[in-house]
Amino acid sequence: MLLIVAITGMPGAGKSTAAKALVNLGWTRVVMGDVIRAETMRRGLEPDAKNTGEVMKLLRKEKGDSAVADLCLETIGKTKAERVVVDGIRSMTEVETFRKKAVVLLVAVDASPERRFELLRERGRKDDPLSYEMFVERDRRELGVGIGRAIALANETVSNQHATPDKLAAEIAEVVGRWEKNVST
Amino acid sequence: MLLIVAITGMPGAGKSTAAKALVNLGWTRVVMGDVIRAETMRRGLEPDAKNTGEVMKLLRKEKGDSAVADLCLETIGKTKAERVVVDGIRSMTEVETFRKKAVVLLVAVDASPERRFELLRERGRKDDPLSYEMFVERDRRELGVGIGRAIALANETVSNQHATPDKLAAEIAEVVGRWEKNVST
Repeated sequence: MLLIVAITGMPGAGKSTAAKALVNLGWTRVVMGDVIRAETMRRGLEPDAKNTGEVMKLLRKEKGDSAVADLCLETIGKTKAERVVVDGIRSMTEVETFRKKAVVLLVAVDASPERRFELLRERGRKDDPLSYEMFVERDRRELGVGIGRAIALANETVSNQHATPDKLAAEIAEVVGRWEKNVST
Repeated sequence: MLLIVAITGMPGAGKSTAAKALVNLGWTRVVMGDVIRAETMRRGLEPDAKNTGEVMKLLRKEKGDSAVADLCLETIGKTKAERVVVDGIRSMTEVETFRKKAVVLLVAVDASPERRFELLRERGRKDDPLSYEMFVERDRRELGVGIGRAIALANETVSNQHATPDKLAAEIAEVVGRWEKNVST
């Protein structure tokens, strides 16, 4: 039985911190953004925020809204892992795609726009927004794909508004541990 | 200075439990659903889920997306209260309408669809869904108004997934207390 912890949340909310906490507990992490970044580079483009956003849109146009989830499922199949954390869910269509192949816990990691902007600036990754305008535009793009619905319909919500990385890690471990126990009994 | 704690969340998540906890701390509660229910009755209709949903849509069509928020602001003006908790935010347009007149903390109360369905059935209020199909339809209608965006862009998120009413009350009191202290300094 394949177990998937599907992690959603707005840019900068702390999805990767949460996902990495599960890696420490033996889960295999698959990053949806990596699939898109790889595809962006495969198309000869710099994997910056603008290009990855456009390739994501193109992929969905060409192969449907489940395109990125389908690519992830291929990757998961190759790893042969049975406990997988998928980092970066953007829509309920993706969740439903995973639910056809696995038992899925959808977890939303939440933080306010102000805190996310701060966390993104601290992080300074290549495809992170540099200005507040770019940040707002990126939020708008994610919401346009339907991430708000995925957050609203999550099975569990973890707040990263006041948490340290360690506290966030402990909370996700608790939530997932409880679920795993229920699923396996 | 008018302070508004604006509470959003999917049907059954526990918005009213959270809002009522603030009433115990001296906040004045204004329920957006009451405004819509009053308007529904004023139009000679039973205030059930279907009719209130339709009147909400009509109000927005007639007076714009901020229609219900504008009516709430009228009510708030009459109460002369300076610390108001608004129960039942459905869109960012409503939040922005309040932000023109007040300092606003947007709080999302979250719970999984399964738990919300259970909580709604326990509650059994007149406009609550009776079947799972009606529950899903109501979720769909709320998401159509843009509640997912409001949840995704909240300043604070409180999970009611595993909380007792007392624990939820304590958590919202903590979140609002911390904010109020920051705002007033």
